Amino acid sequence: MKKELLFERAEFVERLAKVKMEMAKRALDILLLSEPANQNYLTGYDAYSFYAPQMVMVSLKQDEPVWMGRFMDAVSARMTTYLSDDNIRPYPDVYVGSATLSAYDFMAQVVREYGGEKAKIGVEMGGFYYSARAHADIVKALPQAQVVDADLLVNWIRLVMSPAEIAVMREAGRIADATIQRAIDMIEPGVRECDIAAAIYHQQVSGTPDLGGTYASAPPNLCVGPRAVAPHAAWTEEPLPESTTVNIEMFGVRHRYQINLARTVSVGKPAPAYQKLSEIVVEGLNAGLESVRPGRICEEVQAAFAQALARHGYEKEARVGYPLGIGFPPSMQMRTASLRKGDKTVLQAGMCFHLMSGLWLDDVGITITQPFAVTENGHEPLTLISRKLYVKLG
Amino acid sequence: MKKELLFERAEFVERLAKVKMEMAKRALDILLLSEPANQNYLTGYDAYSFYAPQMVMVSLKQDEPVWMGRFMDAVSARMTTYLSDDNIRPYPDVYVGSATLSAYDFMAQVVREYGGEKAKIGVEMGGFYYSARAHADIVKALPQAQVVDADLLVNWIRLVMSPAEIAVMREAGRIADATIQRAIDMIEPGVRECDIAAAIYHQQVSGTPDLGGTYASAPPNLCVGPRAVAPHAAWTEEPLPESTTVNIEMFGVRHRYQINLARTVSVGKPAPAYQKLSEIVVEGLNAGLESVRPGRICEEVQAAFAQALARHGYEKEARVGYPLGIGFPPSMQMRTASLRKGDKTVLQAGMCFHLMSGLWLDDVGITITQPFAVTENGHEPLTLISRKLYVKLG
Repeated sequence: MKKELLFERAEFVERLAKVKMEMAKRALDILLLSEPANQNYLTGYDAYSFYAPQMVMVSLKQDEPVWMGRFMDAVSARMTTYLSDDNIRPYPDVYVGSATLSAYDFMAQVVREYGGEKAKIGVEMGGFYYSARAHADIVKALPQAQVVDADLLVNWIRLVMSPAEIAVMREAGRIADATIQRAIDMIEPGVRECDIAAAIYHQQVSGTPDLGGTYASAPPNLCVGPRAVAPHAAWTEEPLPESTTVNIEMFGVRHRYQINLARTVSVGKPAPAYQKLSEIVVEGLNAGLESVRPGRICEEVQAAFAQALARHGYEKEARVGYPLGIGFPPSMQMRTASLRKGDKTVLQAGMCFHLMSGLWLDDVGITITQPFAVTENGHEPLTLISRKLYVKLG
Repeated sequence: MKKELLFERAEFVERLAKVKMEMAKRALDILLLSEPANQNYLTGYDAYSFYAPQMVMVSLKQDEPVWMGRFMDAVSARMTTYLSDDNIRPYPDVYVGSATLSAYDFMAQVVREYGGEKAKIGVEMGGFYYSARAHADIVKALPQAQVVDADLLVNWIRLVMSPAEIAVMREAGRIADATIQRAIDMIEPGVRECDIAAAIYHQQVSGTPDLGGTYASAPPNLCVGPRAVAPHAAWTEEPLPESTTVNIEMFGVRHRYQINLARTVSVGKPAPAYQKLSEIVVEGLNAGLESVRPGRICEEVQAAFAQALARHGYEKEARVGYPLGIGFPPSMQMRTASLRKGDKTVLQAGMCFHLMSGLWLDDVGITITQPFAVTENGHEPLTLISRKLYVKLG
């Protein structure tokens, strides 16, 4: 199979250098990465195989990371990573779903081969793909090693994206634009909720004529009418009524780079108070965006948003944004910076966020959001769709 | 919000009784379930919220399980579970993404309230949603409790489905039939791979005119030509060539019940040897299906399949099937019975499997599969699409 690399080798080498520098600071000899986004960031690896035991090892002493995973996925590793064949180490199928064998024993053996028997080894304690049992197996198989928590070490580094990554994020933004537009076009009384969700998936995966799309880290959220208060509930098969609101949060994904975007659509003419509320949300959104520049801290963006709302008598203390980047199921949460009160993270050019501006009152919600990249001078919006309440008259 | 229960309360009560019986056998006072499928099975809970800390507690002494999760998802818990409000215990948002607070401390406090301070507590050590850190936090917060591994306790029980569940599986099968048919209809030279994937998603989520669909536990697998050997690779945006093969594995999902199904489609006239190979696979598939009845053991189904292949000189030792049922991302793997050599699990009416019949030779693969339920007398196919190699002439 031919290599399908999304980035130049030099880009991966630079990412690795940053990670090694942080490892050296923490006196880590070896890093075992179980988070698929971190594996993808450091090697390019992209296949839906991470639900089986799979890790990427970074050793301070080695020039390349080592991919360790299931035998049948080694082809994907050769295809999608820049790693030499020697650094692709599949475990045989006898380890798959075995009640007696642990693939982590196999991986611990690879760690020993690379001189890690007595190493200080960082693991990702809080990740989805590093279960309680995985940790127990690793610790047991490497009794002389010092296994410590290095959760988020790579996450903090990949929070600041390179120009090549931002270019892919822009492509994801074009897919997000096409997808939200498709959803808005589709919404009208009588259409089943599941058919709107289906159209969203279709556009997201088809992408645009020149940019193919792919799966996101999560299903879209589609909350009709009173279900606005149950943000993660499943959509139903009910037809839309003559008059309601639809809150949509959906995704544009290019390769594994994901843009999140949300809009509210009013089915039927919105009440004047609701229309007014939407304008307040947009005012807050714009105020938040205008406050963005390198050197500012995250909580300042939240404050700009909240102050704009406060001028109209609304309070919003909750988080108004989170980072965007590489996403894998079940969630793209980077678990690093947030646009919220108390977050002192300094904004840098290359960071991308979803300014998740919305207001939820007793039983209505409205959400009009904007994904953006921090630039040298301010921000760059990553989607182009209008910031407004969309209205579909029956 | 009104209750949206998929099953009668009596059904949930019966499931709980089975779990409690097994807990009593193992002298467990309390069970903490982190696997979303097990939470759904015992309470009905259905929302895409499991990526945040969320557990269902079963206490031998309590009549109902207790749902513990994020504040904003408590509405979904009230809506989709049969639990009384007292047994829905949300943690406040201050625990979300906090660097200093652990939601597992909150949940441990609920465990203590229910008398679990010194209990013998079972946890799911091997699940995706019970990370190394979750376990460390639970053990630390309940120092006098005895925390033991109870992974798969509920999985083994939900392996045998009730008639009400089988009825939902049949509906999922109708969606799977519609979805694979849509994919076959769509396949022709010049169509981009991502547009085929998009059509699959569209049909899966739309469902049928009377049965709305939903998201699956994983993306479909779509492997064109030589990519048959990279089963979990991402699809591309390349157009299909004039002559190739397309291996598709996709899903029909009704509520959270999932049917897996795979077909190979030949674009252009297949080589006679390939056509012959497909007939051998179907012969093996039929032999496997005909061997199914209660009382048989799993490995006998694999043997029936392998023997049919052996008559034509092909060997297949690998697993040929796995259980179907409730699925959540990232994988519906039930991690219990497998249709493979050495698996002595006794088939019972109500179990459902995907007979994942396929053959992979050096560089070609063919897969024609059948999901089925074990019945009192044999088996019931859960999809109706023909068992054959589909051919699309340009």
